[in-house]
Amino acid sequence: MTQSGGPVVRTVLQQCLQAGLQVEPAQDGREARFVQIERGMVVYVCFLKGATDDILSKMVSTLLNIRLCESNSGKMVSVCQLPGSLLIVPQATLGGKAKGRSMQYHDNISKEDGLRLYHAFVSLCETELMNAAGAQVTVKHGTYGNRQVLKLDTNGPYTHLMEF
Amino acid sequence: MTQSGGPVVRTVLQQCLQAGLQVEPAQDGREARFVQIERGMVVYVCFLKGATDDILSKMVSTLLNIRLCESNSGKMVSVCQLPGSLLIVPQATLGGKAKGRSMQYHDNISKEDGLRLYHAFVSLCETELMNAAGAQVTVKHGTYGNRQVLKLDTNGPYTHLMEF
Repeated sequence: MTQSGGPVVRTVLQQCLQAGLQVEPAQDGREARFVQIERGMVVYVCFLKGATDDILSKMVSTLLNIRLCESNSGKMVSVCQLPGSLLIVPQATLGGKAKGRSMQYHDNISKEDGLRLYHAFVSLCETELMNAAGAQVTVKHGTYGNRQVLKLDTNGPYTHLMEF
Repeated sequence: MTQSGGPVVRTVLQQCLQAGLQVEPAQDGREARFVQIERGMVVYVCFLKGATDDILSKMVSTLLNIRLCESNSGKMVSVCQLPGSLLIVPQATLGGKAKGRSMQYHDNISKEDGLRLYHAFVSLCETELMNAAGAQVTVKHGTYGNRQVLKLDTNGPYTHLMEF
């Protein structure tokens, strides 16, 4: 929680059959580079002012263990239980607030702190998902600060908002 | 606002280059039916308890006129100014709140009221977008209550949360 009692991290979660994300744009004759996951969950994440490392453990435990994914039998299970992969997408726009016809991002954390927390979050997801579900699944993530060129294929995204 | 001061509608917005959505599942030998938009905005919408028709006009005016879309020149413009199309996706999961490892949906509006508001929202979007941007763009929408089989292709989703 911030001093004002609001959340310090905003995430949006979507289920996917396959998702691909550009992690390096085309440049100097080199082709763009993409990462891809198969079945699993896309995690759009935005750290807000007041977020510290203290929030990460609870956040990862919640996101990996809450039942947001539909199993083959139609039962809701966690991404660890599925087991599914994770695609983590840094998404600073999630911190936006409308002012008139523009969006403002005054609640967003500084780029330096956001980058540090983002990488710590990715690392913790990698460790926890590997511990819970093993090598059959994977964690991929976007490049912080870059344009997030995303392709998503779903059997129903079951979009959820989770704030911490 | 609800009596408790919370929002009565939750929307998540993503920019797309192309998006397709199943509106009728395969059945009795018939193939599934899809709708598709080209460049524009995907609007995931969930009506919560306390939502009435009174909210729709402000909601549509805000969503269509706020600058969430990147123009070819890199300037942020509204979906009307782009001009872009709309794909409206009913997404009851957006009303979820975590309780332990499960999601609960006690804040969601009744199915009957949700269906009525959803169709009124779609109609108003159609009218307003047509008035503002003409026949070069279109409004497509998912079937309320169905599984929302979605394919999304973006040049950066610029995911935003907007509550009313």
